Order: sequence, then structure tokens, then C-alpha cells
Amino acid sequence: MAQIETADYETISAIDTMQGLKRTHACNDLNQDHTGQEVILCGWVSRRRDHGGLIFIDLRDRSGIVQVVFSSDVNKDAFVKAEMVRNEYVLAVRGTVKVRSEGTINPNMDTGTIEVYGSELKILNMAKTSPFYIQDNIEVDEILRLKYRYLDLRRPEMQKDLMLRHRVAKSMRDFLDQHRFLEVETPILTKSSPEGARDYLVPSRVNPGKFYALPQSPQIYKQLLMVAGMERYFQIARCFRDEDLRADRQPEFTQLDIEMSFIDREDIISLMEQMVAHIFKEGIGAEVPASFVRLSYDEAMARYGSDKPDLRFGMELVDLSGIFKDSGFKVFDTVLANGGQVKAINVKGYANAPRRELDGLVDYVATYGAKGLAWICYTDEGLKSPITKFFSEDTISKMTALTQAETGDLLLFVADKPKVVAAALGQLRLEMGRRLNLIDPDKLTFLWVIDFPMFEYDEEDKRWVAMHHPFTSPRDEDVQYLGNDPGKIKAKAYDLVLNGIELGGGSIRIYNRSIQEKVFTAIGLTPEEAIDKFGYLLEAFEYGTPPHGGIAFGLDRLVMLMAKRASIRDVIAFPKTQSASDMMMQAPSEVGPRQLKELFIKSDVVTKK
Amino acid sequence: MAQIETADYETISAIDTMQGLKRTHACNDLNQDHTGQEVILCGWVSRRRDHGGLIFIDLRDRSGIVQVVFSSDVNKDAFVKAEMVRNEYVLAVRGTVKVRSEGTINPNMDTGTIEVYGSELKILNMAKTSPFYIQDNIEVDEILRLKYRYLDLRRPEMQKDLMLRHRVAKSMRDFLDQHRFLEVETPILTKSSPEGARDYLVPSRVNPGKFYALPQSPQIYKQLLMVAGMERYFQIARCFRDEDLRADRQPEFTQLDIEMSFIDREDIISLMEQMVAHIFKEGIGAEVPASFVRLSYDEAMARYGSDKPDLRFGMELVDLSGIFKDSGFKVFDTVLANGGQVKAINVKGYANAPRRELDGLVDYVATYGAKGLAWICYTDEGLKSPITKFFSEDTISKMTALTQAETGDLLLFVADKPKVVAAALGQLRLEMGRRLNLIDPDKLTFLWVIDFPMFEYDEEDKRWVAMHHPFTSPRDEDVQYLGNDPGKIKAKAYDLVLNGIELGGGSIRIYNRSIQEKVFTAIGLTPEEAIDKFGYLLEAFEYGTPPHGGIAFGLDRLVMLMAKRASIRDVIAFPKTQSASDMMMQAPSEVGPRQLKELFIKSDVVTKK
Repeated sequence: MAQIETADYETISAIDTMQGLKRTHACNDLNQDHTGQEVILCGWVSRRRDHGGLIFIDLRDRSGIVQVVFSSDVNKDAFVKAEMVRNEYVLAVRGTVKVRSEGTINPNMDTGTIEVYGSELKILNMAKTSPFYIQDNIEVDEILRLKYRYLDLRRPEMQKDLMLRHRVAKSMRDFLDQHRFLEVETPILTKSSPEGARDYLVPSRVNPGKFYALPQSPQIYKQLLMVAGMERYFQIARCFRDEDLRADRQPEFTQLDIEMSFIDREDIISLMEQMVAHIFKEGIGAEVPASFVRLSYDEAMARYGSDKPDLRFGMELVDLSGIFKDSGFKVFDTVLANGGQVKAINVKGYANAPRRELDGLVDYVATYGAKGLAWICYTDEGLKSPITKFFSEDTISKMTALTQAETGDLLLFVADKPKVVAAALGQLRLEMGRRLNLIDPDKLTFLWVIDFPMFEYDEEDKRWVAMHHPFTSPRDEDVQYLGNDPGKIKAKAYDLVLNGIELGGGSIRIYNRSIQEKVFTAIGLTPEEAIDKFGYLLEAFEYGTPPHGGIAFGLDRLVMLMAKRASIRDVIAFPKTQSASDMMMQAPSEVGPRQLKELFIKSDVVTKK
Repeated sequence: MAQIETADYETISAIDTMQGLKRTHACNDLNQDHTGQEVILCGWVSRRRDHGGLIFIDLRDRSGIVQVVFSSDVNKDAFVKAEMVRNEYVLAVRGTVKVRSEGTINPNMDTGTIEVYGSELKILNMAKTSPFYIQDNIEVDEILRLKYRYLDLRRPEMQKDLMLRHRVAKSMRDFLDQHRFLEVETPILTKSSPEGARDYLVPSRVNPGKFYALPQSPQIYKQLLMVAGMERYFQIARCFRDEDLRADRQPEFTQLDIEMSFIDREDIISLMEQMVAHIFKEGIGAEVPASFVRLSYDEAMARYGSDKPDLRFGMELVDLSGIFKDSGFKVFDTVLANGGQVKAINVKGYANAPRRELDGLVDYVATYGAKGLAWICYTDEGLKSPITKFFSEDTISKMTALTQAETGDLLLFVADKPKVVAAALGQLRLEMGRRLNLIDPDKLTFLWVIDFPMFEYDEEDKRWVAMHHPFTSPRDEDVQYLGNDPGKIKAKAYDLVLNGIELGGGSIRIYNRSIQEKVFTAIGLTPEEAIDKFGYLLEAFEYGTPPHGGIAFGLDRLVMLMAKRASIRDVIAFPKTQSASDMMMQAPSEVGPRQLKELFIKSDVVTKK
């Protein structure tokens, strides 16, 4: 349908007030039960058609759409006004519900069996032509959508996503309230702590030269609330990270933040399973299993090459290092001799993969650092591969057994350092799963990953860093390695993974000053630095801190998964672009020199080249 | 009771784990119904006494306190450990509930009819001596309380306040969810808008030289959500104002923010009355009337000298300007001739006020700008006053009638410009109400103040400013004065007042570009400035904006009133001091030069004297 020319917006006299019309129903409320009833509706013109002396208006509100019919026989004034109406005009309508005649029933509309005959029409506001159609599944540049976010959000699918988000947050709060958790608000203006991501800073006017930082998470506050004896805390909290943005990152994001005292890992895992089941039921009506699969970090890395594997399909990584030891194939031998691995995935039934696709996969794994990719096709005419000639029959039969390869299957191999093998083959597994349509988009496969390493070695900074964060407790039996072998320590940490995406993560915390100090030392803080940055926490640990632990869930990502969206921007009302800008308000923006002066800062931009 | 010496905190070997003990009850759960039952409790040592070979420990958790008894007859190991225990140690206890013998029942404790005989004791953590007692009604410097906030929050009254806050927020969300409102999160990193209070700024790293501002309220976002067709929005939202702090102000505060489409003032007032009733019922079990008194702004100022009068008592301001016109008393005559007023309050039964107190009241009103205060005592021996001699009998009898003065009463007069009379006599009314104990602290008196002026004249800036904010709609009949007589315009604004404190305020909004532009012009914005600051809003109004309005409530203040606290700091988990500092974390703090460089700013402090 053609869009209508811009209305003469200045004709204010044409705009009515609500006076005398009080909405009785939402559009989507109406059905045959209302037949004969007089109703008053408010909403936007989604579509307007003239047909056989009648004017049909699809009136849209948050609930849905209903068809309103104007006839000069019913009310002349209303009909004349209806002629003036254009798309996205704001209307209030009084009318009577009638059942549609057989042939005019619209099975694609919730309200398709009825229509409303309008007896009074008020034009509450006019509308210029929208820069894009207010309907689902539009193909519009996202920048334009973000600039006119107030129109983008008028589209039914966007409204549904925000309703879902509301429902999810509500169900979290209901569940946690029922389980005696208290929601406590923690500060947004807090202290900069260079451990972790980059902070957003806020210059202080009252304390010249000093800065607040926006919190990357309420981690320390929630631990202090445990010291304070709150026992069960939660918060749906805004968090901030000044990082370069990827598709699923925003400068500010929301997390469900939880902490409990007097519990161990099993307590929190089991409670969170109940909560997740409740949220998915309330949010999207999905049934979730009573308890989730668990994998240790080591096992997840070994079998899927990822600490957040997608378990909706198999195609596990098979370690063939033992078999190929001294196989005579130089590439494999060299890798294995240098502490590397040879692993493969079995892409079932894909032996007939086009040669061009196989060549493309070499480039694919290269982006994850793999220097090469080998393949073996189990065809009707035997094995086809550039590498089988190097292997003995015994090696081949062992390989076939371990990979459970059958005629028709394709084996893909990566030989490299363990980290590279995991990354490349783990990603290749996902890619082949997508290409062969093995991933059921309607399946929800949850997984706990546990027993994470406490530290990982940062090659660039040449130091150990905490894999989760430095407040995570080492396993009791590993505390002894804190001073001497940090790489050996496993942490009391756990991540919840859904369909290959990390939904949340948490840990049992350190609650003892001496252990916390040792962890700070392990990550390279001097005692002075530890005191400077976290002295209040170390001190707090000495005043009767209970054992405690918690978890945090990314709300944006959770809702995105539930809504089956590809970007968290679709489930955030006013997201920012990849350059961290608000396209609608034009933020960030320049500010006046007086504002900067009051804050005791100067812009450093002019002095830059 | 004496506090115990600091424990040797390094004796980690003395600390037990939770292993094998899983909490079965909260301390306060227990009563005679549990007699004979084995329970496992966790908590803090509130008090410990040795008595007759027994050790009594008051074990405290979030729920309350229960007495645990250790006897070497019951369990030798537990008894030995109990001897090591000091105040604020963290314990897990297994024991059996027993009814206390007649003489040992403690009627001041919820659990005072029972005690728990401990058969197993684990010391989960030790504690150094607290810098103050962990109990209610302590007299401790607030700075010390804020530094050790995690201990301050361990005090039962503080925990109760945070629980109340949780319950209030929960009841708001439940009510609004039930009424089809959606909670939508709006950005914290937003655009600076110099209209209003001072912004907190956040330098952008990705956009050199540009700044985000933290929102003073989600006002514009919520209006854009109405343009977006969300119809009913709310958010419990964090807001920020970089103002010099008073007792009831914080740099960041929380408000319940509400906006609705297709409604008028009556709709929102009536819904909010229902909501307030629900909140007070759920929060503190209070019954609130079904609808609240309303006063126009003009009437509130005339009768109480305040736009947020405390209606828990009378003592209204009586206008005697008409009576004293040309009375012959020069002070009154001059004031009246210059457009001033003479008003009085009748302090019933206080004719015998000491002369010294009356003199002190002159100083009191002087702080509100009044140049003087006159008084008349209606004593048994007739009127006593320095000013009655100037008045005719007729004037005196008219005055007596209008003020309803009787023998024993005290009249207090202020003659000045209307603004000064209102401020001075309004405050004097409150002060006399407090001194004479006329204000019932248990009474909840709600009031709507309506029909506010749209603008007030800023003498300093020599321009009109919006009394609420520039998005407030003028009354339809007053729109005509926008260009020529802004002082005459009343706004569709409403404030909710409880016991003389503003709980919330809101308005029906402008939703028409042309009217919005005229309001911007009235407050002195050029068309270019209006476009620069609010262009996106003006543009949005042209795309089909529904009539809408809303309200916002200060959550901190609301909970403070419900908890009968004097400061909002008592109902905020981690508040800041008057110098906007976090005493516990030492925020704001200095940051490294690399952090500033990345943000393209320099500190301007060194160059200041």
C-alpha cells in the first residue's frame, strides 16, 4: 500500500482531545463475546482502505489490531473524519462490535471474526509519513531504525520483545522473592578498579581531580552485603564496560545478580535450575528439565573444544594423538613431538562434500589459528584423502573405530597446539552443524560447566590472571598450590550454558583474608596495591564473613535467546551502535566549557594530532 | 557487656567448612511447635555468656535471634568450641529445640519461649572486635557507620529497612504489572541537557571530546516510549544530580517512574491512589483512604504557605490584609500599600508563651526573609501585645472573628511580600506544630496539589522557567497565553504530598510540536537551541504521538517515611556522604594517567590555585 503524503501538521484545529471518550478495551481484547457491545478503543492507524462507500481502518494498539468500519449510514461526521485519516494517525473510536459475515472473516487476525462499526471518531494526533513501514520483518538499515527508535519500537515484533523482557524480569523477581531473596540496589557511582575491563569514569565536581567509575558488576557490593548478613541478595543491575563493541555487546547491559550465604555449590546450582525452569515457563511457556547436564571445563574443552559447547548436536572432537604417534606422517609427527594434539570430528554422511567446500574449510580454521586442515572421505569406493597414504592399515582401523566412521562420513582433522585445536575444531564443529542443519532451533539444551581453572596465563602481560575473577574460591584441596603452582588450581566456579551461549556464571567466593591476599599475590598485585584497591574488602573479611557464593546472568542475552533474536539490540529499548552512540539523541555530545571547568577537567582532543 | 579481645585471625585451622551441615531453619522460624526437633542453624554470635557450666549464645541471622545452649553433658566437643567463640563469629549449629523452663522465658524475644541445645558446632569464621555494637539505636558517628557499612547493615533495624525497601519495590511492581504496565529499562549513558540540575558527565573514549550524561530522570525516554506505542510504562530507575547535598539528597537516587497514554489527569490520579494504598498495605500494613484530599496550588499557598503542606494539623494562615487596610499601624499600612499581605496563624492555647520564646520566633521567621513578627496574646486579662494599641475595636473584633481567636490563644503575624509571608508563616506554622506536639507521627495524611503555575520567574536569570519541567502541558484554556502572559498559565501538573513531604509529582504532557516549541520559546530557548537540545523529541511529536501523562515517586524518600527514619541514608544500602564520597570504598578516587589519556581528557586541578 502506498504511503500517504505528509499531513499539514500545523492544522492543530483538526486535533481532538480525549474528552468524553474513555477507553473501554484493548484492540485485541475483542471477540464474538462482545457482539452488540459498544466499545471505545484508542490506537494507531495501521492501514486504511476505501471500499464500496465504506472506510476500513486497521486500528493497532499494544495488544494487537482490530478492524474498524466507518459508513456514512452509521455516522456521517465519523465517516467524514475517517476520510481525513492517514497511516499512524492516533485515534479514539466509539463503535459497536459486530460479527463479520462468512466471507470476510480473516483467520490471520486474532480479532478476525469481528469488526467494530464506528459511531464516533476523534483524531487525537496526526502523523507524517514514516521513514519505514510499521510492520514486522522489514528490511531497513539498522541505523535508520535506531534513529527513529520510537517508530521502530511501534512495530509489533519489537513490542512483543519488550513485553517478553518485562515478563522475564518479573518472573525472576517473583521467584527470588518467594525464596526469601531481597533486592538491594547498589551504587552506580563507585570506585575504579583496573582489574577487569576498562571502566567508564565520572569526574567529581566536589572532589577535584578524583573520579567515580561506573560498575562493571556489583560483585564487591554483593559480597559486602553477605558480610552485612543479608544472606540472600539479588538485583537486576545495570553494568558498564568501556570495551570495543561486538554484535552482542553494549556499553551498558543488565544482569541478574545473585548472592547467597551459608551455601555450597550444589545449593546454588539446584536453586538456579528451579529458577531457570520458572523463567522459561513464564517467559515463553517452555518446559525445561529438572536438572541440567554437567561437564567439567577439561571435558568440555576435550570433547567440544569450547567451555560453552552447544549440546544440541553431537559431532564431538575425538583425540587421535595416541594413534598417530609416530605414524610416519610428518605434519602429525612434528605437532605431536612438540606437545601438540591431533583431533578430528566426524561429519556424518558428508563424504560427498564438494572439494571446493573442503578447501574453504581450510581458510575457515585458519581464522582460528590452525595452520591446516586434513580430511578423509569414507566413500563407497573406499577412503579418499590426501593423507591416508601415510598411514598403516592398523592406524586407519583404530582411527575408524575411535571416530565411529562409516561409509558416507567425512573426517576433518586439525593438528596443532591444544589451544588451537580446541578453537579451530570447536568452531568447525559448530560451522558444520549449521551447514548440515543439525541444530534444532527449537531445542533448549542447558549445561553446567564446572571445575574451571582458577588462573590462566596471560602471554602478553606475562602474568597469571583470574579466569573468572579474583574473588572466586579455589577448591579446598588446591589452596596449597596458591604460592607455587597456580596453573594446577581449579576454582569453585560454574557457568550456565544454553545452546552454546553463556547465560550466566558464578562461583563460591573466598571469605578469608589470608586466602584472598594469596590470590591477589598470584595475579601480580603487591600487598600495597591489594590494600589500595581492595583494602576495604580484605578488612571486611575479618569481621565475621559467612561462606557465600553467587551467580550472574546476562539478561539481555537471555531475553535475546528466548525471543530467538540474533542481536541483543533487538531486546533493548534504546541500544547504542557499535561506536557506542545513541543515534536518536545524538549522544555522546559536546558539552560547554563551563561544565568541564566545574569538573576540573580539560578536553585533550585539540592537542592530539 | 565487655567486648572480647581481637582473635588470632590467622588461625585458619580453626575455621570449619559448611560440609555436612545444611541449614534447616532461620533463627526466628523456631517456636514451641518445633519442640524436640533437630534443627541446623547458621548465623552470627550476637552475645555469649558463661553461666553455671553452660554457655549461652544468642545466635542472630537476618530473621532474628534464638538462644543456643551448650553443655558439656550434651556434647563435649561443641562445648569446647563454644568456649572459643566471640561476638560476631559466624557459626553453624546442630541442636534440638527445647521449651524453656517457666522462669527463663524471655518475653522480649520472638523465640523467647524456646532454646536450642547444641550438639554440634562449627565455627565458619572468626571476627575481630567491631568498631561499634551490632545492635539497634546505637549512638555512633555516622562517618564511622558509613566506613564500616557492612557492619552497620548487620544491625537489625538497618536490615529491616532494607527488607521494607525490597517489599515496597516488589509491591509497586506487582501492582503495575497487574495493571498492564511494562517495566522498560532506559539508558544510563545518555545526552547532557543543561535544562534542570547539573549533569554528571562521562567522557567517551570512542568519540573523542564528547561526553555522555547520567540521566536526571528518564523523562524524555518515557515520553518516547509513549510515541512508540508502549501505552503503559514504568521503571524503578536510578537518577543522578550533581547538586550540593542536603540531608535528604544523594548524588544518585531511585524513582518509580510511570507514564501512560490515552488518559487524562483523573485517570492517573485515581490509579495512583489505588497504588499508594496497595504499597502502604503491603509495606507497613497501613490502611490508606480510597481517595486523597486535593488543593490547588493557590489554595495551598494561601492556607498553608506551602505547596506541600502538612495537613496532619490545622493552624491555617488567615489573610487579614482586608481588615488591616488603613489601620493606622504604619508597618502594616506600608506593606499593604506596596502590594504586600498581612497574615496570621492562631496558635491555640499558647497565650502564655514565654516572652523569650516569642522573641526567638522573630529570629526564626527572619531566616525565611521576614523583617518582623507581631504577636497578640488573648489572656484572661484581655489582649496583650505591642501592637493592639494601634487598632480600632472594630478592627480587633473582625480580626478575632476571622482568626477564631479565643481566650488562651496566641496570634502570630507576618506582614511582607506574599512570597515572604508564605515562606515565613508557613514554616512558623510547622515549627509551632512541632513545639506544641500537634503532629501525630502515626498519622498518614495524603494530599494532591494541583493546578500549579506553568512558569515561575527566575529573578536571577531574568527569565521564565518551567515550574515542573518544560514538557508539562498547559491547561487547554491557557494555551492562548503562551506567547504573551506566561505568568497566567496553569499547568496540568499534580504533586502527591504525604505529611508535608513531596512523595511524587507528574503531569499531563505536551504532545504537539507547535505547543512544545512555544514553551521552549517561553523559557528563553531560541529555535536553534530547541532543535539542538530536543530536536529528536520535536520530530517524534510529528509521527503520531498519543496524549499521555505520568508521574514519578522518590523511592528513597517514600521508604524513609514508611520506616519513620530521618534520613534517606538509612534506607539506602551504600549511601554517600554530604561531600558525595563513599567512605567505605574511598570513592571517588584518583585514576591513572593512561586512563585519562584514553578518554581524551586532562585533569585541570594542578592549574587551579
